[in-house]
Amino acid sequence: MKQNSIAKLWGFMLCSCMAFAQTNAPAITEDFKPSTVNQPGQEYPQVNSQGYARFQIAAPDAKSVVVSLGLGGAKGGTTLEKAEDGLWKGTTAGPMDEGFHYYHVTVDGGVFNDPGALNFYGSTRWESGIEIPAHDQDFYALKDVPHGNVQQILFPSKSTNTSRRAYVYTPPGYHKDKSKTYPVVYLQHGWGEDETAWSNQGHVNLIMDNLIAEGKIKPFLIVMTYGMTNEIKWGGMSSFKIEPFQTVLVDELIPYVDANFRTVATPAGRAMAGLSMGGMETHTITLNKPDVFSHYALLSGGVYKPEEIKDKSKVKLIFISCGSKERPEGVKDAVKTLKAAGYNAVSYISEGTAHEFLTWRRSFKELAPLLFK
Amino acid sequence: MKQNSIAKLWGFMLCSCMAFAQTNAPAITEDFKPSTVNQPGQEYPQVNSQGYARFQIAAPDAKSVVVSLGLGGAKGGTTLEKAEDGLWKGTTAGPMDEGFHYYHVTVDGGVFNDPGALNFYGSTRWESGIEIPAHDQDFYALKDVPHGNVQQILFPSKSTNTSRRAYVYTPPGYHKDKSKTYPVVYLQHGWGEDETAWSNQGHVNLIMDNLIAEGKIKPFLIVMTYGMTNEIKWGGMSSFKIEPFQTVLVDELIPYVDANFRTVATPAGRAMAGLSMGGMETHTITLNKPDVFSHYALLSGGVYKPEEIKDKSKVKLIFISCGSKERPEGVKDAVKTLKAAGYNAVSYISEGTAHEFLTWRRSFKELAPLLFK
Repeated sequence: MKQNSIAKLWGFMLCSCMAFAQTNAPAITEDFKPSTVNQPGQEYPQVNSQGYARFQIAAPDAKSVVVSLGLGGAKGGTTLEKAEDGLWKGTTAGPMDEGFHYYHVTVDGGVFNDPGALNFYGSTRWESGIEIPAHDQDFYALKDVPHGNVQQILFPSKSTNTSRRAYVYTPPGYHKDKSKTYPVVYLQHGWGEDETAWSNQGHVNLIMDNLIAEGKIKPFLIVMTYGMTNEIKWGGMSSFKIEPFQTVLVDELIPYVDANFRTVATPAGRAMAGLSMGGMETHTITLNKPDVFSHYALLSGGVYKPEEIKDKSKVKLIFISCGSKERPEGVKDAVKTLKAAGYNAVSYISEGTAHEFLTWRRSFKELAPLLFK
Repeated sequence: MKQNSIAKLWGFMLCSCMAFAQTNAPAITEDFKPSTVNQPGQEYPQVNSQGYARFQIAAPDAKSVVVSLGLGGAKGGTTLEKAEDGLWKGTTAGPMDEGFHYYHVTVDGGVFNDPGALNFYGSTRWESGIEIPAHDQDFYALKDVPHGNVQQILFPSKSTNTSRRAYVYTPPGYHKDKSKTYPVVYLQHGWGEDETAWSNQGHVNLIMDNLIAEGKIKPFLIVMTYGMTNEIKWGGMSSFKIEPFQTVLVDELIPYVDANFRTVATPAGRAMAGLSMGGMETHTITLNKPDVFSHYALLSGGVYKPEEIKDKSKVKLIFISCGSKERPEGVKDAVKTLKAAGYNAVSYISEGTAHEFLTWRRSFKELAPLLFK
């Protein structure tokens, strides 16, 4: 996903390193601390205040240990060196972007996870994760405020002949005021991720708790389910069809949520949003089902064109975002065109981030106050 | 945990194998299928109808790959062999016990997880898991019945100066009948596990859904939180003190649950149960706090003696269980003594299982119908 920016930066580093070798190497500040998404009690991986990541892996008899994260070597990644204590150690060649990154460790040619890090579902496998502290991380921090719940539900799905899992964020107080109803955002993950991504990687529940505590939004529910319904072979997007997921979402999940939670069960009370592939799904399904959703949001997931939308009166908001290291001009231009065509359209560019979760955490924080006005 | 039974079986096998070598080796039925707790789309690990487990790990340049599960070799485990296709392959030397097992893979001396398997928190790390189909697995299967929710809550904890995580199982219909109140079981995991264990490894939510659908129990809530509150160094039990966890549970979590869920907020409506170390915690806390709980359950987690209990009138049920490969006589004797002393005490022995999760799934299924009568 970050191939472009990695390639560019690598090109730059290759030149500067070859010219200046040792002398010009940036000084690394030795204030490394364990990543905040390490397994309990684990000292490694670590990150420092500049955004460098440092790894330490035990594999005393291995010939080669390479971490997929970082900018070192022709293929990218960070090649670890075996120290005298038998541990493989290494630091990224440069600072990483702020925020969350997936990674894995290649040990003698086999792909494993870092035993020190928590795992997160991405690229159709549970990958290691690391968190580079962001200067604005306060908005998704766990704070001493009232907290909503993240509820795992199992809803019946006739079309796929099973009970399917979804997570429902219910805001603080949901359990108390038994007559109040809430609008709902159906929020989709990206390719290779699943219904755990927006909570685990995105901290969307904490973003909501904090925005509600600050009085910046009116509470709503968030529903997250698996969007790769027909991806049997986990191979890629080539065989992707929207119909199986659209059926699960619109004909099975939404009626279940409306029947089992206190929702505003009208188009005015429903948004659909998604990141990356989830944006593509949002784009297609909102256009296919104009009588189901009225608020649309694409996070690093394409754009809407005015001519694609059948009935303008049914669209209350279009939100389009991406990271500044993606294609921000495309997002801005699309929103300019939508505005000119009379839509309530908003763009957001996350500064200094690429196709990664900090872009989407920030995008969601910008989106939330605009919803259900 | 299974060291005793492994040692005994290993001793037996050593004799028979040396005497009969090839001829007497059991025929392995070639009906291997992917374990039900594999990562999506992953073919390995596999299990067959006899309970053998087969592993396949890619690490083309490794010198040694050993799976911690199985009975092969002097140290236990299964030593994989490198096949011509560069993959490391191997099958356990004998059938495994039915049910769920933790394991990991040692690659050139480093401890990693099997990239094919889902991970489960045990032994203070996220370990690989494998499921040997049990003959009675139907009781914890995902079925087409109404499903309850598993809610992640974040509750304020002054004593530990943070918001702590717990999971609350709410039965089907909880969201609908807004006046009904429910008794609550506070259910603890074992050493090295956490608040995810009873759902992920134990399937306690599915056990409940199925028992409710069959009309075998009256619905109740289950609350699961982390019980190793003061285990800073993750080293073991030697420094364990009950007070920090007791404070979190009794003074912080219970009031939060009673304030935020529709509970029967009296001792008559509260049970405490735990497996292994969670049983030890249950034992201590129920004896310390006779005015909080009235139903007690120890699952492979020790016994009560009549002389430990201050006021017999406050105890409505004592349930004590373990696997037949643990110390069933100790459990039966303790319950016999409790009954003779006038307690409503029940024992349960899980046939053919050791200190593992199938023992505890079955124990919970036996316990649930006895609660809150």
